[in-house]
Amino acid sequence: MKLKSFTHMNCSLAQSLEILGERWTLLILRDAFLGKRRFDEFLSTGISRNILTMRLNSLVEHGILERRPINGKVAEYRLTNKGLDLQPILLAFTHWGDKYIPHPKGKRLVFVEKATGKPIAPMSAYSKDGRPLKARETGAVPGPGT
Amino acid sequence: MKLKSFTHMNCSLAQSLEILGERWTLLILRDAFLGKRRFDEFLSTGISRNILTMRLNSLVEHGILERRPINGKVAEYRLTNKGLDLQPILLAFTHWGDKYIPHPKGKRLVFVEKATGKPIAPMSAYSKDGRPLKARETGAVPGPGT
Repeated sequence: MKLKSFTHMNCSLAQSLEILGERWTLLILRDAFLGKRRFDEFLSTGISRNILTMRLNSLVEHGILERRPINGKVAEYRLTNKGLDLQPILLAFTHWGDKYIPHPKGKRLVFVEKATGKPIAPMSAYSKDGRPLKARETGAVPGPGT
Repeated sequence: MKLKSFTHMNCSLAQSLEILGERWTLLILRDAFLGKRRFDEFLSTGISRNILTMRLNSLVEHGILERRPINGKVAEYRLTNKGLDLQPILLAFTHWGDKYIPHPKGKRLVFVEKATGKPIAPMSAYSKDGRPLKARETGAVPGPGT
């Protein structure tokens, strides 16, 4: 199925979705954040080998994962800095899911600051001086790239 | 095309993607955040009427948009609180796109705090006392719903 491209849209969200908006891609990235590195490890989500191969190749092409050959044949996939910078997207999806599609017993995974062991704050927009901002408290204004 | 469901996965990200992970859905929500309300206004993204109808119905079913009939035939679609709480997801995608797929002249849209007019902080994980945390400074521990 040929999908309509979003690349002509002058919108950073659309540009990001052009790379990340395929089904499975964010689940592959979730697993990379949770420490999975090898092709066979990523299969455990239930993705087909076919689709996994395509998605991993695309993530490598876009510089989000780095492919490092290990012992000749096997390769590892590691998040680059560009990939690590996707974490707020994954956390925002996860916190929303925790809130609106909860497990009856509570959070499935708790994200913590390693240094303190304390849970991170709920994902939110913040002012530059650190106040959480609700959606109705923010607005969008055209920038130089409009 | 029948897609594999993510609903059996005990993962808040997968649960969120089951609702939000279809192509176009986040672009429809972006337009709702930017003030669009009517069916014909959402068409301007280039989405087909067919797909738009399905996506709007699904967002209404999931309580993310509320459908309000206006003047008999025409309806408006408004974000509910559950929908407004999706803002961090959209902002996180947008900030990542601003950084890694930039427009040559700069930001396309600048998100500001309405009260001050000042740009919001870059989307990031934050500690509860307001310090931005990089991906490598955070970890995941199993919660009660694991």
